[in-house]
This record gives sequence, structure tokens and C-alpha cells, in this order.
Amino acid sequence: MKVFTKALSSKDILAVCGGTWQGDSTGTFDSVSEIAEATASGIVFCEHERLLEAAIASTAGLIITTANLAPRLGKRPLLIVEKPYFSLMLLITWWLQMDTKTDKWEIHPSTIIHPEAIIADKVAIGAYTVIAKNARIASGVRIADKCTIGENTVIGANTLIYPQVSIREDCSIGESCIIHNGVVIGADGFGFLLMDGIQQKIPQVGNVVIHNHVEIGANSCIDRATLGSTIIGEGTKIDNLVQVGHNTVVGKHSILCAQVGLAGSTIVGDYVYLAGQVGAAGHITIGSKAMVGAQSGISGDVPAGARYFGTPAIDAGTMKRIVIAQRHLPEIFRAYQKQSKDNNT
Amino acid sequence: MKVFTKALSSKDILAVCGGTWQGDSTGTFDSVSEIAEATASGIVFCEHERLLEAAIASTAGLIITTANLAPRLGKRPLLIVEKPYFSLMLLITWWLQMDTKTDKWEIHPSTIIHPEAIIADKVAIGAYTVIAKNARIASGVRIADKCTIGENTVIGANTLIYPQVSIREDCSIGESCIIHNGVVIGADGFGFLLMDGIQQKIPQVGNVVIHNHVEIGANSCIDRATLGSTIIGEGTKIDNLVQVGHNTVVGKHSILCAQVGLAGSTIVGDYVYLAGQVGAAGHITIGSKAMVGAQSGISGDVPAGARYFGTPAIDAGTMKRIVIAQRHLPEIFRAYQKQSKDNNT
Amino acid sequence: MKVFTKALSSKDILAVCGGTWQGDSTGTFDSVSEIAEATASGIVFCEHERLLEAAIASTAGLIITTANLAPRLGKRPLLIVEKPYFSLMLLITWWLQMDTKTDKWEIHPSTIIHPEAIIADKVAIGAYTVIAKNARIASGVRIADKCTIGENTVIGANTLIYPQVSIREDCSIGESCIIHNGVVIGADGFGFLLMDGIQQKIPQVGNVVIHNHVEIGANSCIDRATLGSTIIGEGTKIDNLVQVGHNTVVGKHSILCAQVGLAGSTIVGDYVYLAGQVGAAGHITIGSKAMVGAQSGISGDVPAGARYFGTPAIDAGTMKRIVIAQRHLPEIFRAYQKQSKDNNT
Repeated sequence: MKVFTKALSSKDILAVCGGTWQGDSTGTFDSVSEIAEATASGIVFCEHERLLEAAIASTAGLIITTANLAPRLGKRPLLIVEKPYFSLMLLITWWLQMDTKTDKWEIHPSTIIHPEAIIADKVAIGAYTVIAKNARIASGVRIADKCTIGENTVIGANTLIYPQVSIREDCSIGESCIIHNGVVIGADGFGFLLMDGIQQKIPQVGNVVIHNHVEIGANSCIDRATLGSTIIGEGTKIDNLVQVGHNTVVGKHSILCAQVGLAGSTIVGDYVYLAGQVGAAGHITIGSKAMVGAQSGISGDVPAGARYFGTPAIDAGTMKRIVIAQRHLPEIFRAYQKQSKDNNT
Repeated sequence: MKVFTKALSSKDILAVCGGTWQGDSTGTFDSVSEIAEATASGIVFCEHERLLEAAIASTAGLIITTANLAPRLGKRPLLIVEKPYFSLMLLITWWLQMDTKTDKWEIHPSTIIHPEAIIADKVAIGAYTVIAKNARIASGVRIADKCTIGENTVIGANTLIYPQVSIREDCSIGESCIIHNGVVIGADGFGFLLMDGIQQKIPQVGNVVIHNHVEIGANSCIDRATLGSTIIGEGTKIDNLVQVGHNTVVGKHSILCAQVGLAGSTIVGDYVYLAGQVGAAGHITIGSKAMVGAQSGISGDVPAGARYFGTPAIDAGTMKRIVIAQRHLPEIFRAYQKQSKDNNT
Repeated sequence: MKVFTKALSSKDILAVCGGTWQGDSTGTFDSVSEIAEATASGIVFCEHERLLEAAIASTAGLIITTANLAPRLGKRPLLIVEKPYFSLMLLITWWLQMDTKTDKWEIHPSTIIHPEAIIADKVAIGAYTVIAKNARIASGVRIADKCTIGENTVIGANTLIYPQVSIREDCSIGESCIIHNGVVIGADGFGFLLMDGIQQKIPQVGNVVIHNHVEIGANSCIDRATLGSTIIGEGTKIDNLVQVGHNTVVGKHSILCAQVGLAGSTIVGDYVYLAGQVGAAGHITIGSKAMVGAQSGISGDVPAGARYFGTPAIDAGTMKRIVIAQRHLPEIFRAYQKQSKDNNT
């Protein structure tokens, strides 16, 4: 259950969600939750038949529901909309922003800011964060406690950085990004050259450029380029424990699910969807709007708009037929063995 | 080699392990190790024939062994038990607790505790940890240095939290849990809705509930629910670099090996064993006591007690037969080609 | 673009790279970059035909190129060598060392060093790092901000540790190692014994030993041994988000790419190459100079020098033939079905 600082009236809720209010409209609401844990001042949604019984039994103060289900929910406060889940999410998004607006722009005294770093007005920084020389932090940025921002690194306006994030030198983070706990941006790319029996380090002196509205999940790593930049395009969302190798370029509005790994110099287009644990080799191109199934291993180019699956990944429909045929492989093998024997006798 | 603060006598050791002492019983012992690195005040175990020679040659002060092997180890101090490895582990577990008992309950002055946080007596907190408003830390809890405990988050009695752990707001950690370095609990679930060409963030306002006796490995991530809770059941053990998605529910006493990934709303039963790098799709159920082989990709429900393997994962016995037949696929293919040609001529 | 503190003359560059200088040699140079972002005081390389046009158009102060391409680059400053990329990398490596030499050996006053820790001269330690009792930090070591070094842990000379690294007690890190942000060394190995319905913890009282010249990527985890040591051999390089289980022993100069997972007691030889997301079972041996393809699942021993691929991993050539035949499996299946039907009628 999420309890908000600011309580909402029916008028507030109608202003955000639209729809039709039914029943008593004088109450105020201060939380959202699943039906099971709802309180008398809480809001829930009921979109499916199967939740109806629980919704009827619940003490929720307000149920967001459809015109179809409303009659069966009785004479309690209801907000009737077309898509209850969507409306509730819209309401929460707006509500969270309301709550955040009451935050203070404070920089904790334990934060260590280099005298040559440039910190805009209206910046919040938590305890024990370290901001290096020539770093530039734009207005509206919130950096939580125990982060490290490297030399010359730029953080764009309104970006939110959770605790324990490390961003190394010379990197650029866009506006309105969200970077979750433990993320590492700009660590050395993984490049070595075997010389005289030694893995000689190839220096990594490029950087990472993250465009606006990017979200990066907890403990994910985006390595700096050897030369040039590792780039994450505008609006792309990256889940937890993802690895993005050096000089990789990811386009706009793509989705990288948890534990995806992109090797070096991989090119990923716009609106690409990589499901969990997908791996992609380096120096290949994944076309825009491609969708790749979970755990696939991408070893060559993926055409734009393609649906791929498997290791090595191929057209998902073809792979599906292979998987189905594979279930019969033991019997095919027995038939083959019998026939070989027959042919030999 | 592990050296303990408190040295043990033969009497202490017999009290914990039982068994029969043989040889001189006047010595004291202060360490445990592998045979190769044992010292004259150290304890080792010898359970297998193949370690016998090394054990005889070692200077170990005490060898825990079986009645079978004892005669060949000579006239040195021996503890004869049925299961030497198990007895040594039992001894170490008890010994570690002895040592820990001498710890002091101190809160480092650099720790920042919100005035409205509630900290029980007998709590130890390391340097540079930050504890937010309304967090509640129960008695016997040890939180190491540089952790972050969010608003309203509850840590149950006797839980041990290693350095650099982040737990976000509104979460609940049970009693006697162990949370290793770099773990992130309660980061936003990964939910977006493509609207007008933009990946719109679905707010994540649920929480994470960890029950008692759970252990979570280094740098693992457990995301908060969208609404409701992501839940880890009592006694479940999670290895390093594991991803648990939002609204996933894991039962009791299950084992999630390293780099496992569970997508959103996955249901995992009790006593389930997921080997390393297993991935599971969302909105599926893995029945209790199911065992799933390493790197498997679980795309549908797994029956209770089943043994599954492969991507997509199926019954492990069937998959094993497929794997064996697969080795012959090139020759089957050649036979097929030849036959097709014969049929066409 | 990487800008260095110290500018170089043509004489400096020739001393490091050799080769032949062509054109004006009076300028100085302060940066390296890709061709597209080069400045008039910047150095780039042009090794391939396809970069020639961009190189000609660029304002780069110096182009490192081959004798073949030089005539087409006009009358600008050129350094002509056999392997331009290699020469530039050599130059950068040397240049970075020059720059680093100007660093100061300072210990930030917020660092907490136990009075019984031993810190050599010429050690740099960043803010909010915590160094425990009896830790020993050798000369030339740089530890960044917010690291945690456990009791009795030893850090060898000239090792570089980035922010937010945790190294637990009793571990040993060699000389000239590089440990990236968020790495966890020495967390408990993952060992439990199901007893009376409870996953009983097997105590983990061994340690981790990292030899000289090892590099460990961001957020990787190397678990401590149950007894004895988890060992990473000299010169081995480990990428990001890699998991090394307890009692695993990795040899010298091996490469573990991102998201590799090694279970417990795995033995890995020298000069082994494990591509991204490879998993290896415990208690197996991967022979020296073996190469294992991305996402492979190693379930048994791999001979020295072998090339393996697949899950379960087998000889890569054989697996390649299986993968090719697999593409025809649906048609093979149809032929088999037809034949079965014919045989039955």
C-alpha cells in the first residue's frame, strides 16, 4: 500500500482521470493498493470479473472500475472509466509528482563537492555523495546519498539518481533520466590484446552518453567507449543487471529487460525489445522494432521489425517450428537407426 | 584459514560435535582450514581416502575423521565421528556465533539516523549508513557501513546487512536474514506502456516483503511491486546477481542460484531449486519442489516436483533424450537429404 | 574525446610509437578521439579505406596512419606506422601513466582507518572509505571513495580500486590489479544443506586470493571459499557482472566476459576464453587455452585447447553442424511423419 502525503478529493481525481463518479463524493483518499490490503481511505481498481468478489468484500474507499462491473459493486464510491488499471496508473503518476513537489532542494553538508564543480539552483544531493572537478549538475536534479559523480561529467535537468550510483569521468547524462541504485556508468570497456603471453589492456578513454528520459535499472553497467562514446538513445528503458559493452549504441525508446548483455560495438535500433537474459555479439546491428525472445543469443544482424528467438537467434516462427519438431527428435532418431540397420542387412 | 578469537578445548569440541576423542586431549584450537594450510593449533577434516596422505603429512592439531580412516592417521589428536565434513561445519557455525557474541552494539557517529526512525537497543550500525524517517530497526540487527535504509522500512530482529546495501522505502525485511554487499531491495519494477511513441513509466508504488531467515547474495536485485508486494518466503536462499522482478512471489526454503532471473508476477513454490542462470517468464507458476537445470528458460508453468531443463524448459528426462538424439542430427540430416534425392530421381 | 593534462610534442610521440613523421612537426597535442570529434590539437587514427574520407575532412591535428593511406591524406601532420590503432593505444597507455604521475598521494580525512591497519607511504584513499583492523595497504595503491576493506585483507602494491568496492575480511589482492566500481570480493559462498525442512547455512570461512595484474569489471562478485581459497590467477581479466562461486580456481591470463557464471569448485586453466553469459557447473575442469562460445552451458570437463559451444557445451564444430542440420528439422520431421504413415498403411 502506498500512502501519499497529499490526500485527494473526488474533484482532484476526476480532473486527472476523467470518467463518471458514482456514490458518495465527499470523502478524501490518501493511498492506493491491491484490493486485499485496501483501507477506507484507499483507492483500488477492479477491471476483471475474477477480482469482483474480493472488491465487493473490500473496505476500499474508492474502486475504479468499468461501466460493466459497476452495477455489481453496490452503492459505494466508484469511478467509472474505460480502462481502470490505466486510469489508476495515470492517477498515481500525477499524485507522485504532487508529493515530490513538496520536497526541499537541500544539499547534505556531508556531500563533498569540488570547488570547480558547477551545481545549479534547485538541486538536491544526499549524504556522502562525492562530486568531482568540473562536474555540472543541472537544475531539478536529485542525487541520493553515497553517489559518485566523476570529473567533467554532466547531469541533465530533472534527472533522478538513486543511492550508491557511480558515474565516472567525462560522461553525459540527459534530462529527466532515472538511474537506480548501484548502477555503474562509464567503467572501462573490456578490451585486451594478448601480447607476449600477457593480456595487455587497451586503454578506454571514450565516454558514455545517455540521452533524455532514459531509465537504468539497479546494478546495471554501461561501459565507456575505447574512443568515442557508448550511447543510450532518448527514452530507452534498461532493467536491472544489464551489461552494455563499450562503443555500443542503443537507439530511442528501446527496452532492454533484466540481465541482457550487449557486447562491444553492438548497434541497437529504435523501439527494439530485448527480453530477459538476451545476449548480443559485438559488431552487429539489431534493426529498429526488432523483438528478441528471452535468453536468445544474437550472433548476427537482426532485420528491422523481425521477431527472433533462440541461440543462435533466428526468425522466431522458424525457431518455434524447430522446437516443436525437436520434441520428436528421439523417435526420429530411432527410426533413422532402424533404417540404417535395415539398409546394412 | 579462519582464525577465531576464542580458542576451543577438546571438551568444547566434543560438546558441539559429539563423537569420540582419540589421542592427546590437552591442546586448544583456534582455527579451521583445508589440510594444506593447517597449523598446529588448527582443525581439519579428512573424510575421503584421497585426502589421507595429505592429512598424514599435515601439521594439523586436530583431524576430524571417520572410524574407518582413523587407524591410518597415527597417534595424533583425532575426533572420530560419522560425518566429518558435517561435524566440522556444525562446529564452525557454533564457533562463529561464539565469536560474534563478543561484538559490541555500537552505532558509528557518522551514521545518519532520521530523528523519527526507531532504533531498538542492541543494534550495531557501521559508518556512513543513512536511515530514513520512520524506518524501524529491531534488536540484534547489524547494519554495516554505507547502507541506505528507506522511509518506513522495517528490519526484523537479528538480521545482518553487509556494506553498501540499499533498501528503499516501505519495505519489510524479516528476522535473522542475511543480506550481502551491494544488494538492492525495492528498486522500481520494470513497467512501461508504449503510448504515442513514448515508453510511459507505470508507477511502482508497491513494496518488497522478505520473510524470516532469507539470505540474499551480493549485488542481487529484488524489485518493488507495482501495487501490492514482491515477496520472498521464509528460509529461501538467493545467490549473487539474481534478479527478482516486480510482484513475483517466491515460496519458502527455495534456492535461487547465481544469475537467476525471474520476470514480473512469477509464482515460485516452496523447496524449489533453480540452478544458475535460469530465467523464468512472468505470470507463470513453478510448483513446489520443482528442480530446474542450469540456464533453462521457463516459459510456462512447471508442475510441482517436476525436473525441468532446456529453453524452453521441459521435462528433464525428455530433454536429455533430445540432447542425445541431437548429437546425431547431422547424420540424420545427411540420410534425409540422400533419401529426398533418391525419391526425386 | 579524451583530453590529457600534459600536451605532447612530435618528439614525445615518436619516442613512444616509433614510425615516420610527415608534415609540420612543431605542434603540440592534448587529446585523442574518434575522427568525427577530433580537434586541431587532437590525435586520431586512420587504418582502413572506409575511414579515409572522414579523415580527410576532419580537423584532427595529427593522423596516425599507414604508408599506404598516407599519400591520400594530403600535406597535414601524419605519423606513419605499421599498425595505427595499435600505436595509438600504446600512446594512450603511456600518456595516461604520465597524467596519473601528477596525482597526489592523499588520504581523505573522512576515510576511517582502523588504528591497527597498516597503510604504506604513497597511498591514495578517497572519501568515506572504511578500512578495518589489520588490513594492509601497500605502496602505490589508490582506493577511491566509499570502498570497504575488511579485517586482515591485504591490497598489493599499485592496485587501483574504483568507488563503492567491497572486499571482505581475510582476502588477498595482488599487485597492479584494477577493480572496478561496485565489485564485491569475499561475500559468503552459496552453500546450504536441507535438514529437517530448513536450508541450513554451511559456514563460509575461507577467503579469496587475487593474484597480480588481475582486472575485475563493475559489479562482479567473487565469493569466498567454504574452507581454503577462491583463486583468480595472475593476469586474468574479468568483465562486468561476472559471478565466481566459492572454491573456484581460475588460472593465469584467462578472459571471463560479461555475465559469465562459474559455480562452486570449478577449475579454469590458463589462457581460457569464456565468452559472454557462459555458465559452468561446479566440480569440473576447463583446460588451458579452451575457448567457449557465448551463452554456452558447460556441464562437464572441457579439454585443454578445445573450442566448445552450446548447452550442454560440446565441440564447437560439431555443435555448428548440429545447428545447421537443426534448421532442416521441421522438414525432416515432416518426412518422418509421412514415412511412418506410409509404413502403417
